[in-house]
Amino acid sequence: MKDETLLMLPGPVPIPERVRAAMARQAINHRGAEFGDAYADIVRVLKQLFGTSGTPLVISGSGTAGMEAAVANFGKGRKMAHLINGKFGERMYMIGQRYASETRPIESEWGTPLDLERLTAVLEEGCEVVTMVHNETSAGILNPGAAIGKICREYDALFIMDGVTSIGGDTFRADEWGVDVAVVGSQKCLAAPAGLAAVAVSDRAWERAVENPPYYLDLPSYRKNAAKDPMETPYTPAVPLFLALREACLIIEEEGTEKRIARHHKMAHAVRKAVEAWGVGMFPRTDDLHQYSNTVTAACIPKNSNDKEFRGIVKKFSIQIAGGQDHLKDKIFRIGHMGAVSAPELLATIAATEFAIHKTGHTVNESGVMAAAEVLG
Amino acid sequence: MKDETLLMLPGPVPIPERVRAAMARQAINHRGAEFGDAYADIVRVLKQLFGTSGTPLVISGSGTAGMEAAVANFGKGRKMAHLINGKFGERMYMIGQRYASETRPIESEWGTPLDLERLTAVLEEGCEVVTMVHNETSAGILNPGAAIGKICREYDALFIMDGVTSIGGDTFRADEWGVDVAVVGSQKCLAAPAGLAAVAVSDRAWERAVENPPYYLDLPSYRKNAAKDPMETPYTPAVPLFLALREACLIIEEEGTEKRIARHHKMAHAVRKAVEAWGVGMFPRTDDLHQYSNTVTAACIPKNSNDKEFRGIVKKFSIQIAGGQDHLKDKIFRIGHMGAVSAPELLATIAATEFAIHKTGHTVNESGVMAAAEVLG
Repeated sequence: MKDETLLMLPGPVPIPERVRAAMARQAINHRGAEFGDAYADIVRVLKQLFGTSGTPLVISGSGTAGMEAAVANFGKGRKMAHLINGKFGERMYMIGQRYASETRPIESEWGTPLDLERLTAVLEEGCEVVTMVHNETSAGILNPGAAIGKICREYDALFIMDGVTSIGGDTFRADEWGVDVAVVGSQKCLAAPAGLAAVAVSDRAWERAVENPPYYLDLPSYRKNAAKDPMETPYTPAVPLFLALREACLIIEEEGTEKRIARHHKMAHAVRKAVEAWGVGMFPRTDDLHQYSNTVTAACIPKNSNDKEFRGIVKKFSIQIAGGQDHLKDKIFRIGHMGAVSAPELLATIAATEFAIHKTGHTVNESGVMAAAEVLG
Repeated sequence: MKDETLLMLPGPVPIPERVRAAMARQAINHRGAEFGDAYADIVRVLKQLFGTSGTPLVISGSGTAGMEAAVANFGKGRKMAHLINGKFGERMYMIGQRYASETRPIESEWGTPLDLERLTAVLEEGCEVVTMVHNETSAGILNPGAAIGKICREYDALFIMDGVTSIGGDTFRADEWGVDVAVVGSQKCLAAPAGLAAVAVSDRAWERAVENPPYYLDLPSYRKNAAKDPMETPYTPAVPLFLALREACLIIEEEGTEKRIARHHKMAHAVRKAVEAWGVGMFPRTDDLHQYSNTVTAACIPKNSNDKEFRGIVKKFSIQIAGGQDHLKDKIFRIGHMGAVSAPELLATIAATEFAIHKTGHTVNESGVMAAAEVLG
């Protein structure tokens, strides 16, 4: 492990050596074949992961830049509805407030299912754009892409979906579900370094693109440049990150999309079994197993402990898990299981977490390590 | 040279191996001491290069993102004047049009000095924000930062200056000149990979920051997060690029700011001497030597040749120089001399360019290689 901390977070995640090595390349001209080929490789693989026939456009910026590009290019001056059951749903709402003519937050408590009835009511009143976070890492909940897509189509509203922490790790079918704008971040399930976002846009949405979005996030301009041969970006791209993401995509292609998603499901299943064995309780307030995130698991910190103590014990093993954000601090811990990690990292993490549970005075029902091993073995 | 093309462009530029190696680091948590220390190192060095007591804020995005952050946070809803004598001046104007209540372009022909009288007239009419590109690489001209800063102060207008291709390679004194917002890009004189921009803001400008800029480019939010200990960014940063830029800054610190600028001036002097020896003519239309760029030299392609042929010959030596942009295509060529490059790269480039001049049927007055060597030796 050298001086490396194992990051078992809902991103950033450990980056395979091949991917990191790709960044050592000397500077290249970003308006040439070598760069264009890298971009084309990225697009080929991302199309599979997004489940779209469109071209995912790559922005040099974080997942938030991708989300803002979606909202700014398709929500500006329009009535927007924001489905919220966690921190990133709230962030979408905050971005919406900078662009929409009117915003309607549809809030559920963090970690509880979305309120589909209220969405329908809001759409009845004439909302034109809906945003949703597919995989809400702040609460470990997976929101129903297909169901919301269907409702949006019924009301002819554009559907913007944050797939930042699901695309590449869980099933995502933009075209089939009726997602008009989908966004992924590089440092999550794709296991590439942080700093790139990709945005895929439906034909229906392109027809409704607004005028004068922010210059740097002008998606029609990204589209025009991506159509060139060799592929280009409108402004100087973060070249090393493109080369790294290309390598990460090639690794994904070698593994195969379905196998990769199955691996993530298996990891999620293993962690849930451990949580069950510990008896600390899952955080998401749902009985629908399909609404548990498959890329991050949120569970409750034993009542007699707190975030600093609990994660501090885990950290002694050079393993970093996540705590709760905002009002969930000291209440939950979160184990990320996305990207390139697999059984060894997961077993170590579960062992360290179980140790923290013991040390903070909680008696587990049975061994979470053994329960997880049963799934992973 | 392996499979590497020597990029003698006005960015991207060759990246030292130490800088590229810094990116191989395994993913780290960007809300921790290791990241914060890297950011702090960057800021310490950039303050010197910007000539400011303020804190340059680093955005994960290209120089254009930095320019848009400047315009969006300080020009939104205001009357803006845009000084233009090249492509990047035009870009600033285009960005201004997305934010300003009114825009006044003050255009000079590309490569000719700016029109200070018209600027004064426009300011008399009540313009609140002025933009200028310090080093206009499209034309190889250096615009007068101090003079424009003085005029802006007289009229109490905010002065936004694009230092994307001058900061780190030429004299830049933001505080002394009265520059309110200055921007640099990572892949130019700093010799780091593309993908980061840094923005320094005067106290006077902070007091006039607008409400609701784009979410991703919200500078007050960058400021707030940079004030934390350890330093942070509001959204997930492009971590490998920060680590690379930190290493690039340490190299700059080792060289020393003054020595670095002197090296750039010497390189510029050498290339100008070569152009003089060739007799092809400098492109910038000015007799004021101080208005020649010190980081890129623009000269005329021999009349009987064109861009493709001319630069094609240079490329045979695995050296890439730049052509003219937009209407200057086929008219000029540009040699970048910024960042980490020095005598060897420059001599090779001048030799290859002289060969192209010969091969396209132009007889040089005397050897440009010898003239440059005289300066560099």
